[in-house]
Amino acid sequence: MSQTAYRTHHATEVTEKLVGQRVTLAGWVDRRRDHGGVAFIDLRDATGLVQIVIYDEEVARPLRSEFVVQVVGEVRERPEGNENEHLVTGKVEVVVESLTVLAKSDALPFQVSTALENEAENKLPGEDVRLKYRYLDLRRPAMQRNLKLRSDMTRAARHALEEMDFTEVETPTFIKSTPEGARDFVVPARLVPGSWYALPQSPQLLKQLLMVGGVERYYQLARCYRDEDFRADRQPEFTQLDIEMSYVGQEDVMAMAEKVIAAIWKTQGYDIKLPIDRITWQDAMDKYGSDKPDLRFGNPIVELTDYFKNTPFRVFQAPYVGAVVFPDGADTPRRQFDGWQEWARQRGAKGLAYVQFSGDGELKGPVAKNLSDEERAGLKQAVGAKDGDAVFFAAGAREPSQLLLGAARVEIARRAGLLDPKKFAFTWVVDFPLFKRTDDPDDDDVAVGHSKWTSMHHPFTMPSADWIDKFDKDPEHAMSDSYDIVCNGEEMGGGSVRIHRNDIQERVLDVLGIGPDEANEKFGFLLEAFKYGAPPHAGIALGWDRTVSILAGEDSIRDVIAFPKAGGGRDPLTGAPAPISDEQRAETGVDYDPDEE
Amino acid sequence: MSQTAYRTHHATEVTEKLVGQRVTLAGWVDRRRDHGGVAFIDLRDATGLVQIVIYDEEVARPLRSEFVVQVVGEVRERPEGNENEHLVTGKVEVVVESLTVLAKSDALPFQVSTALENEAENKLPGEDVRLKYRYLDLRRPAMQRNLKLRSDMTRAARHALEEMDFTEVETPTFIKSTPEGARDFVVPARLVPGSWYALPQSPQLLKQLLMVGGVERYYQLARCYRDEDFRADRQPEFTQLDIEMSYVGQEDVMAMAEKVIAAIWKTQGYDIKLPIDRITWQDAMDKYGSDKPDLRFGNPIVELTDYFKNTPFRVFQAPYVGAVVFPDGADTPRRQFDGWQEWARQRGAKGLAYVQFSGDGELKGPVAKNLSDEERAGLKQAVGAKDGDAVFFAAGAREPSQLLLGAARVEIARRAGLLDPKKFAFTWVVDFPLFKRTDDPDDDDVAVGHSKWTSMHHPFTMPSADWIDKFDKDPEHAMSDSYDIVCNGEEMGGGSVRIHRNDIQERVLDVLGIGPDEANEKFGFLLEAFKYGAPPHAGIALGWDRTVSILAGEDSIRDVIAFPKAGGGRDPLTGAPAPISDEQRAETGVDYDPDEE
Repeated sequence: MSQTAYRTHHATEVTEKLVGQRVTLAGWVDRRRDHGGVAFIDLRDATGLVQIVIYDEEVARPLRSEFVVQVVGEVRERPEGNENEHLVTGKVEVVVESLTVLAKSDALPFQVSTALENEAENKLPGEDVRLKYRYLDLRRPAMQRNLKLRSDMTRAARHALEEMDFTEVETPTFIKSTPEGARDFVVPARLVPGSWYALPQSPQLLKQLLMVGGVERYYQLARCYRDEDFRADRQPEFTQLDIEMSYVGQEDVMAMAEKVIAAIWKTQGYDIKLPIDRITWQDAMDKYGSDKPDLRFGNPIVELTDYFKNTPFRVFQAPYVGAVVFPDGADTPRRQFDGWQEWARQRGAKGLAYVQFSGDGELKGPVAKNLSDEERAGLKQAVGAKDGDAVFFAAGAREPSQLLLGAARVEIARRAGLLDPKKFAFTWVVDFPLFKRTDDPDDDDVAVGHSKWTSMHHPFTMPSADWIDKFDKDPEHAMSDSYDIVCNGEEMGGGSVRIHRNDIQERVLDVLGIGPDEANEKFGFLLEAFKYGAPPHAGIALGWDRTVSILAGEDSIRDVIAFPKAGGGRDPLTGAPAPISDEQRAETGVDYDPDEE
Repeated sequence: MSQTAYRTHHATEVTEKLVGQRVTLAGWVDRRRDHGGVAFIDLRDATGLVQIVIYDEEVARPLRSEFVVQVVGEVRERPEGNENEHLVTGKVEVVVESLTVLAKSDALPFQVSTALENEAENKLPGEDVRLKYRYLDLRRPAMQRNLKLRSDMTRAARHALEEMDFTEVETPTFIKSTPEGARDFVVPARLVPGSWYALPQSPQLLKQLLMVGGVERYYQLARCYRDEDFRADRQPEFTQLDIEMSYVGQEDVMAMAEKVIAAIWKTQGYDIKLPIDRITWQDAMDKYGSDKPDLRFGNPIVELTDYFKNTPFRVFQAPYVGAVVFPDGADTPRRQFDGWQEWARQRGAKGLAYVQFSGDGELKGPVAKNLSDEERAGLKQAVGAKDGDAVFFAAGAREPSQLLLGAARVEIARRAGLLDPKKFAFTWVVDFPLFKRTDDPDDDDVAVGHSKWTSMHHPFTMPSADWIDKFDKDPEHAMSDSYDIVCNGEEMGGGSVRIHRNDIQERVLDVLGIGPDEANEKFGFLLEAFKYGAPPHAGIALGWDRTVSILAGEDSIRDVIAFPKAGGGRDPLTGAPAPISDEQRAETGVDYDPDEE
């Protein structure tokens, strides 16, 4: 279907095969060079570039960058020595016989030319400008590739799921508020004044209802909404590849998901070795100080609690002491170590203790003098360091110390250039606790209930078989049947076996401090559904924006979303969000007062 | 992937091939029969039914309808004479060795059994009950088929578009309000207190921006939102298959859409003859009194304005007189004709004049005596009736008269049983006017501007080539490059060539009564985008819920949506919409008062 009303061929179809033929092309003026009164123009369309040659100065004169033109002309070989081997069309050019300007362009706020791609990346304006002129930003080859990559990945995932007999089902956007750990976006319902719909944080309960409804294999590329403070790289709306299955256990879901992930990576030529390795949540925390460890490199955390159990150093007389090696870090200048202290303070730590194993075997650094001779003597072996390395320590409560060391481990690798975006290290993280404490200061999720326990995943997660009878007697140690898929230190997705029995669901809610009345009000419909024969079921969701950004090698998910929001949920392109008129407001019913009726 | 933690086979995989093998199955107890202490149970899963046989009364006793069970047993041939030829599994049965109840079921509010399918349709409760227990309603075979059909159609459409090199792009749900003829749903933006996002009525402007951004072929199965009064069969959220292309004209889009539609219908074994026939909007109105004519049957409207130009009958001394034949309607009892009068009055008409051509050639009916002898004599031939027919008339303004006759034409066919849901009559409706009057009483769209003209499609529709220079001088007669695809009297979708030049866009907005300031405020971003070289583009959108319902043969789109809303946008299942807490309300920022800051 190249041939349309405006063209006979796409740009990159114009090759040696067409020499001597007349073609009609349409596209943007990408770059223009003039030699001796002749204009050479790179014409750009969605497929790429082709050179057109205009001998008529009258025709060529008005043409500027990003004019949209239609040209009719004959394809000829380029004169010898003028070939461009970087282009598919580099051996030919089109001698223009007639040209129509389909649309003019003002001078651009920034350059989008393909020819300037490498330089252009460096000349990009700030993100607000890119987003304000997103339609220009999208013309850049890098963004064209990202959009195409996303579409290709989506297609591959769908095809893999179709082969496994999944049914795509669309679930509603207008639902009732459900407790999933973040704030809901809400929409006033004009026809029921004073009432609101909530937008789904995920289709979690809806897909569980589909299982109760006999759809044994469901999937959907689902839009989800969370009204969070837009720290870091979050968007108010995001997409997840949402999957649920009946009559399956954890292994079935993981095997299915591995096939999907392998199909996605295959689109870019990567063969992922299956099955994907696994690590328990406890091991991930102990070794990598993270529930989403980056395994592109080693250098695990070493626990030294036992090693320092009789230490004279007050700081290390702590429930937990751990260390991570900073390879070849011994010669790091003092002011860089000071920078590390600042880095640690920004993460809420008091600082980052360190020692240096200098080349001559001497132990240096502020901590060194506080240790006993015995501790100094055995330290190198205990942490697995070599002469020339430095070592960072953290001491205190176990989890925050591990998180700090885990972050230091990644930062060390980042500075050493070990975070290769073309290398993909997958792992499943398994054996998660069922609950976590609500007073965890490192967690910004909203507790779903009113007790000191909240769900590690969500309240619908099945306790593991060993814990079904006793999870509520020992919430601290209870484990769940849940799993996360992690790639390069990013959580790509996660899932769990779900509770399908009311007795278990009610006991879990009780631990969370959600009594029967509140449970009924919030999701009585799920508890009601479980009365009528709910099959065992389990599922997973992949954060689609993040998954695409990982494979695209982009740091920010905004670079793989066509029209993302900037900070604070603003859209520099359209100006959303914006005030509404008094009439619109009145119609929404938000000011409805039942007493005035 | 039949084999999972809970089963070795699906129900319908259990055939003669497995005789003698041990299988593990899981599913619902569909129907149970007991003979001589032996229980025969139809076990149901997503694939269908298989009979299991339980000899142990202790095991069988507690089992009730819709219990979820897992059984292990040996496959054997059924005793001769006990085969069920309606089932794939009808020659075998599974003798149960062990059975586990995975979930119990209370007595059901209504029956969902496959075995009762035909009767069950008649025993269905009211729709509110079906929606409240939607997870049970979805277990019914008819609904399982509809969900599967929808998924299959979606897959076929995607594959067809993929073959034509379309890129799937997701556009945002949180946008700025744009004028598209209905009320927006709005979402308060907590982080910008007092500001709101609008939910898209369609991705119209976003997909146009994608064209400006160089995505030459875009598609998306897009969720759209319109806050309308939920008359008839509308939903507050709906899905459309949204498509846009650059460097194309109307013919390109229509050819592309025909391939997609053919691929969809092919999933159910229908071969649609391409190209699809076309009718002009004017012809559709004149002949069928509708811009979405049902062409499964003929019986067009006949215009009689000229015929009655000298009539003595005051009622027919009108700008327009038309008629539609009611075949074999002459002997219709008087009280049924009275019913037709009531039918017409419900449509806002004063009544429905008629005559009867009785078998003996005599002209009867209330109108007959008002006509001249000459008019009476020639009428049968003029309207194309035969003895034994009746004829309905409408007189008055052209358009409302035609709409009434068009509705009568369909109602006549409906009562005659001519609306076969398994027959599909497609047509393109083309050559639409560019504008329509805002004072049209038969149109509930909201005018987008402030003049007596509003857009027939939307403000971004291109005038046809003949009219580009003069549409604003004669808005009444100006034509547009737009097209609707109609099947069986339903509008499946529509589209248009879009304006891609600011000069034309501004002149169209001017006709609509939208001045430069308002245009800039409402969609200045589009006008800004057109400054930087916008390619010519065109597109189409198919209303996906409606398209599925047509192919499924369902009258209501609610039967092809997993979780639809009931009247007034209520969800009987979850209770949405619902009040929100004072805390939630405060957080939304809807009560933000800048003066209080």
